[in-house]
Amino acid sequence: MFCGSERDGGEALRAVTHAANIRYDKAAEALCILDQSLLPNEVREVRLDTAEEMVEAIRALRVRGAPAIGICAAYGLYRLARTIEDPDPEVFQTQLRAFSAQLCAARPTAVNLAWALGEMENTAAAHAGAPRRVLLEALYEKAAAIHQDDIDKCRAISEYGLSLLREGDGVLTHCNAGPLATSRYGTAQGPFFLAAERGMRIRVFAGETRPLLQGARLTSYELHRAGVDVTLICDNMASMVMKNGWVQACFVGCDRVAANGDTANKIGTSSVAILAKHYGIPFYVLGPTSTIDRNCPSGDQIPIELRDPEEIKSLWYEKPVALPGVPCYNPAFDVTDHSLITAIVTEKGICRAPYTESLLF
Amino acid sequence: MFCGSERDGGEALRAVTHAANIRYDKAAEALCILDQSLLPNEVREVRLDTAEEMVEAIRALRVRGAPAIGICAAYGLYRLARTIEDPDPEVFQTQLRAFSAQLCAARPTAVNLAWALGEMENTAAAHAGAPRRVLLEALYEKAAAIHQDDIDKCRAISEYGLSLLREGDGVLTHCNAGPLATSRYGTAQGPFFLAAERGMRIRVFAGETRPLLQGARLTSYELHRAGVDVTLICDNMASMVMKNGWVQACFVGCDRVAANGDTANKIGTSSVAILAKHYGIPFYVLGPTSTIDRNCPSGDQIPIELRDPEEIKSLWYEKPVALPGVPCYNPAFDVTDHSLITAIVTEKGICRAPYTESLLF
Repeated sequence: MFCGSERDGGEALRAVTHAANIRYDKAAEALCILDQSLLPNEVREVRLDTAEEMVEAIRALRVRGAPAIGICAAYGLYRLARTIEDPDPEVFQTQLRAFSAQLCAARPTAVNLAWALGEMENTAAAHAGAPRRVLLEALYEKAAAIHQDDIDKCRAISEYGLSLLREGDGVLTHCNAGPLATSRYGTAQGPFFLAAERGMRIRVFAGETRPLLQGARLTSYELHRAGVDVTLICDNMASMVMKNGWVQACFVGCDRVAANGDTANKIGTSSVAILAKHYGIPFYVLGPTSTIDRNCPSGDQIPIELRDPEEIKSLWYEKPVALPGVPCYNPAFDVTDHSLITAIVTEKGICRAPYTESLLF
Repeated sequence: MFCGSERDGGEALRAVTHAANIRYDKAAEALCILDQSLLPNEVREVRLDTAEEMVEAIRALRVRGAPAIGICAAYGLYRLARTIEDPDPEVFQTQLRAFSAQLCAARPTAVNLAWALGEMENTAAAHAGAPRRVLLEALYEKAAAIHQDDIDKCRAISEYGLSLLREGDGVLTHCNAGPLATSRYGTAQGPFFLAAERGMRIRVFAGETRPLLQGARLTSYELHRAGVDVTLICDNMASMVMKNGWVQACFVGCDRVAANGDTANKIGTSSVAILAKHYGIPFYVLGPTSTIDRNCPSGDQIPIELRDPEEIKSLWYEKPVALPGVPCYNPAFDVTDHSLITAIVTEKGICRAPYTESLLF
């Protein structure tokens, strides 16, 4: 189903946000997302009405990016809460928690999904005795607050991130952590939009991010449309670009940061970090504090999602690129050891080692 | 144009070599190659009659792999020599050198192309005074000798390479340096075929090798058909596979080895080497001594081919994966510093640092 939308961010974002990645149409009580799996060839908004549709959209990466799936799930849980007809408050809470668990199971690695759903469940619990109308309104307000909060956090993260760069710097980034992955500006790519707005010259190298090509399809799309000097490379060209002396910093996002600073992010991130260390280039992780999982002592405890081998062999291709019987290993994320991370940039500031202390806000 | 062919190697190779990658049909005076750009979806042999067809086939990677393009160019130069009608021996030599230069310019990085053509030119010069028939026969014999020589060298390299592995080892490899890239067995992937023939269990992780996917299309194809335990990964998953403890060695081929051991090979090779160093895994380069360029003191002097950005953005895809205006950087090779290389395995033995000494045979 289609819905129309235009929403503007800052100046450099104007060209990008021809459609919001996630928006809740209160008049129509409709949760609409931009189907990111079709970009850059097609800009199509789809409406998510059922838990099954929401789970499918998250699993198929129609909506993706750790902060964005948190926001989508929050609105989604509100939307689903509206469908609970039973007048018994206890039944309402039970059914809501069941919907929440269903959404939470869509993807395992990014902690923001569980975090946002937890915030929504807490809100529901706090209004357990209130009339249904009041409870629903509180849930909507909470989802909208999570959304607005992410806009504010991304702006702050972008400012802190930009403070680490100088005019003319080259920055290598991986995957997509721009406006499409968040709410506005983005995290790892937010500083580039801010720089463009201010006329500051930054050259970005975007790794294409196999197998799902978020760097090619989304990051180079967002940055190029916003007038940022972006060059697309295959992931295996990062070493050469660094060796050429073209990269002064690496900026990546995060799906879950353990208490010790170990960071799960898109597969290939740890490779960028190891190359950066080899070439003496600072490596920065950028993300909201909601991505920090204090219940997770180290990266060893972060669950890593394994995805369909066909994503590697045939998903984007006109013809398959390997024989049907060839086994594939397709982890969606990897963990970058905290020792490889120069700093973790949050909305509250720039955290440096030891992370067990600096990440305790 | 099609020609039919079947040629067998060892037992494990029997399944692979349903068509030779390069064969010269002496009865028909026809140079035939298996069009590797169509694999694994189509097995088609094409005939190369003119210099333009040969250059196009090399540029478009219909025939590729440093040793293979040397062999193809040698047969090709013989084939072209047959077309020189002028009875004047000096004109013959001049025209032959012009053909040689034309073929040599097809791709700049792999030194085997220039090496094989140099061998052919020397043969022609040594027979400058001989009757045309004798000269042509000498050229054919030289090309066939280069071909046979590569078979012998690959076998020796494979034996030396296998001596570095133990039962049950996991080996990460990049790009394709198997039978398709050489003559038989291959270089970097040759030990895996030998192991399979001997019932030795080796687990291979093949990086898909963006942008042209030689690892997916060719290496996983060759190894899987030969019964080798091969798992296909995206290039950016190498770090994770190493971190998992699944990799005991890295085996890669080479397009040009400088006198100091710096090695040009498929883009992404230096990244594998840096990751291997980080994880404490030995990193081996395998190739014939014809790949060593003693006129090239270090990697800085190796010319790196830059290729069409569309290889990244649209070549394999049903739809483009980036906006038309997005710039791409597409180097076909990178240089791995000799300090990252545990040993260079040639047909003459296993060479270790200092390479300025060990590579002097």
